[in-house]
Amino acid sequence: MEIYLDNNATTKVDKKVLDKMIPYLEELYANPSSMYNPARKTAKAIEQARNQVGELLGVSDSSSIIFTSCATESANTAIKGIVSHYGTRENNHIITTQVEHPCVLSVYEDLERKGYSASYIGVNECGDLNIESLLNKVNEKTILVSVMHANNETGTIYPVKEIAAEVKKINKNVKFFVDGVQAAGKIPIELDNSDIDFYSISGHKFHAPKGIGALYVKKGTLFDPFILGGHQENSLRAGTQNTAFIVGLGEAAKLAKNALEFENKEVRRLRDKLESGLLEKIKNAKLNSKSSSRVPNTTNIGFEYIEGELILLYLNDLGIYASSGSACTSGSLDPSHVLRAQKVPFTSLHGSIRFSLSKFTKEDEIDYALIEIPKVIEKLARISPFQKELKELGM
Amino acid sequence: MEIYLDNNATTKVDKKVLDKMIPYLEELYANPSSMYNPARKTAKAIEQARNQVGELLGVSDSSSIIFTSCATESANTAIKGIVSHYGTRENNHIITTQVEHPCVLSVYEDLERKGYSASYIGVNECGDLNIESLLNKVNEKTILVSVMHANNETGTIYPVKEIAAEVKKINKNVKFFVDGVQAAGKIPIELDNSDIDFYSISGHKFHAPKGIGALYVKKGTLFDPFILGGHQENSLRAGTQNTAFIVGLGEAAKLAKNALEFENKEVRRLRDKLESGLLEKIKNAKLNSKSSSRVPNTTNIGFEYIEGELILLYLNDLGIYASSGSACTSGSLDPSHVLRAQKVPFTSLHGSIRFSLSKFTKEDEIDYALIEIPKVIEKLARISPFQKELKELGM
Repeated sequence: MEIYLDNNATTKVDKKVLDKMIPYLEELYANPSSMYNPARKTAKAIEQARNQVGELLGVSDSSSIIFTSCATESANTAIKGIVSHYGTRENNHIITTQVEHPCVLSVYEDLERKGYSASYIGVNECGDLNIESLLNKVNEKTILVSVMHANNETGTIYPVKEIAAEVKKINKNVKFFVDGVQAAGKIPIELDNSDIDFYSISGHKFHAPKGIGALYVKKGTLFDPFILGGHQENSLRAGTQNTAFIVGLGEAAKLAKNALEFENKEVRRLRDKLESGLLEKIKNAKLNSKSSSRVPNTTNIGFEYIEGELILLYLNDLGIYASSGSACTSGSLDPSHVLRAQKVPFTSLHGSIRFSLSKFTKEDEIDYALIEIPKVIEKLARISPFQKELKELGM
Repeated sequence: MEIYLDNNATTKVDKKVLDKMIPYLEELYANPSSMYNPARKTAKAIEQARNQVGELLGVSDSSSIIFTSCATESANTAIKGIVSHYGTRENNHIITTQVEHPCVLSVYEDLERKGYSASYIGVNECGDLNIESLLNKVNEKTILVSVMHANNETGTIYPVKEIAAEVKKINKNVKFFVDGVQAAGKIPIELDNSDIDFYSISGHKFHAPKGIGALYVKKGTLFDPFILGGHQENSLRAGTQNTAFIVGLGEAAKLAKNALEFENKEVRRLRDKLESGLLEKIKNAKLNSKSSSRVPNTTNIGFEYIEGELILLYLNDLGIYASSGSACTSGSLDPSHVLRAQKVPFTSLHGSIRFSLSKFTKEDEIDYALIEIPKVIEKLARISPFQKELKELGM
């Protein structure tokens, strides 16, 4: 049995998405920028996909959507494009949170080295953002605020629309970027009539393939394009368009929008079953995903006094696949910056595991996990150097 | 009948390439950055593809290869990464040619706006680069020279290895970037033991899909990474790796290397048949691809006193697909910057058509083109406003 519980790292491509893409990997190969008949067909398919992505994001004017190769490119495009366009010697202040994905934090750190002044806003012990502290930081020098919509490690949802509105009340010139990678396909998104200027998504987090993303840019919001060259994507992103994956992203967006109800009910039910089952059966298990506002598919649980990498290794042998944090930072032995930001104590920080489900997760897979994971934790507890502490927990 | 003669714009995905990719769009979907068993499989597939691309490029250490989303991204990565790393207030001189692809020229123009000093080297009437003029421009302030390996519009090959060696004799600190998009899969490439620092390729020009490219970076040559985020691609290109297309690129590279002989003999034979046939049958036809050094699949022919867009329109109706220049500039009515650089006279400049073949081009397609294209030109000659001049040509 193989049980994939790492859908925040990547998801399986939906068969329906693959079926839609195949013709564009076979006969419909014309360059959508060319002028002959077959190229008009591929160009038209791209515009249909743009509409489908617009619908997922609650955007009525789909010309606000730019296709990119991934959400990391989208984030680089937005952040670098904003500071390049609006940054000056005086206006050089940028704000984000301590719990962003590396694709935002790395760009911020790079901008700091280049002389920008960056503020990193913290979260409380439940993982909720300190919004007052964020708003207090906004001043007349601020050009950019980035806040993710949902956290990849804990699933915590941040009220980005409300934060954007409050930020603009303080300084209407600030541009607001949202990394929406872990929200798209999990919760409803409505960008029309919001104060959000840029919003990034990644296809492979909702059953499109790896290698395709999109960036929403609010109508009238200017930025300096990131990848320069031909006039593709309305001259905002050069490079021959990846027709097949764009078509796949469109189909995945359509399916994801239709599956939001299923996600919210059925995926949530299985996630809750897994979560409450583990917390009940395992005495040293502590919930890290404590926010009252959370995407339906994610839970993050710390197993006190046990090494997370060992848990993952044992689970791997059982065919259960989960992770200790972002795939983009895996391999590193540093504990999660997200969990550190919400002050998870060191006793469970190193033994924290993220389980993330999808619409393809089956009930019998959760049942199997609920049988096997407690056994693994028990086995590892027996070889932990913290015998006294574990005994105090009743183990 | 549909005859695709625009393979420099994009190519059909090889069925063998598609077959190799499909498993990675189905069951083998694990994020290659993850730590569990299925992820090790996808990570291993990526390393195999890296070796295959290395072999196509004559690179024995495949860790010099970085996967990107397209050659435009590769060019942006190389050029911006070099100037960001090596540029100073004093060392701010960059050199390229007048006949580069927009993905190079756009970045150069952007750098000029940012204060860099750029030299654009011209070509002679055959399209050959004025190498002496290029070498004369190299000085102690020069940080970057970019020369394409083969021109996308005329097929002219530039002796990039020799130019790189000469440039480094004048200033060994100069970094040398080669846009190899139109060379890969058409002529042998041998980057080992060369003075080339960066070399970019695009999968969809040799039967891999659109949306995947690579960048060779010489061992020990530093640059500032372009897309920042996770530690993928040895921390030189962030973003979840597009496993399926990377595997496809690897297979396409293997097939392309094996097909070089076929390209040089059979594709060349058909290209020569088309070219000499058109020049023989059509009295106002003039060859623009006049260099003695040219890739085997490309010809560019000017039809005097006739509008190129009209030719393409009529050919489109016959199912013959060609172009008047780069797909990245199509839609624009400006005549080709490449043909202007080689001083093609205005009489044929506006009626210049690029025909580019591939290993999938069939002899009967060329026979059909040789029957139909002369008829189209004759028809258009009859409605040309230049009746006197056409009569002088015997039409």
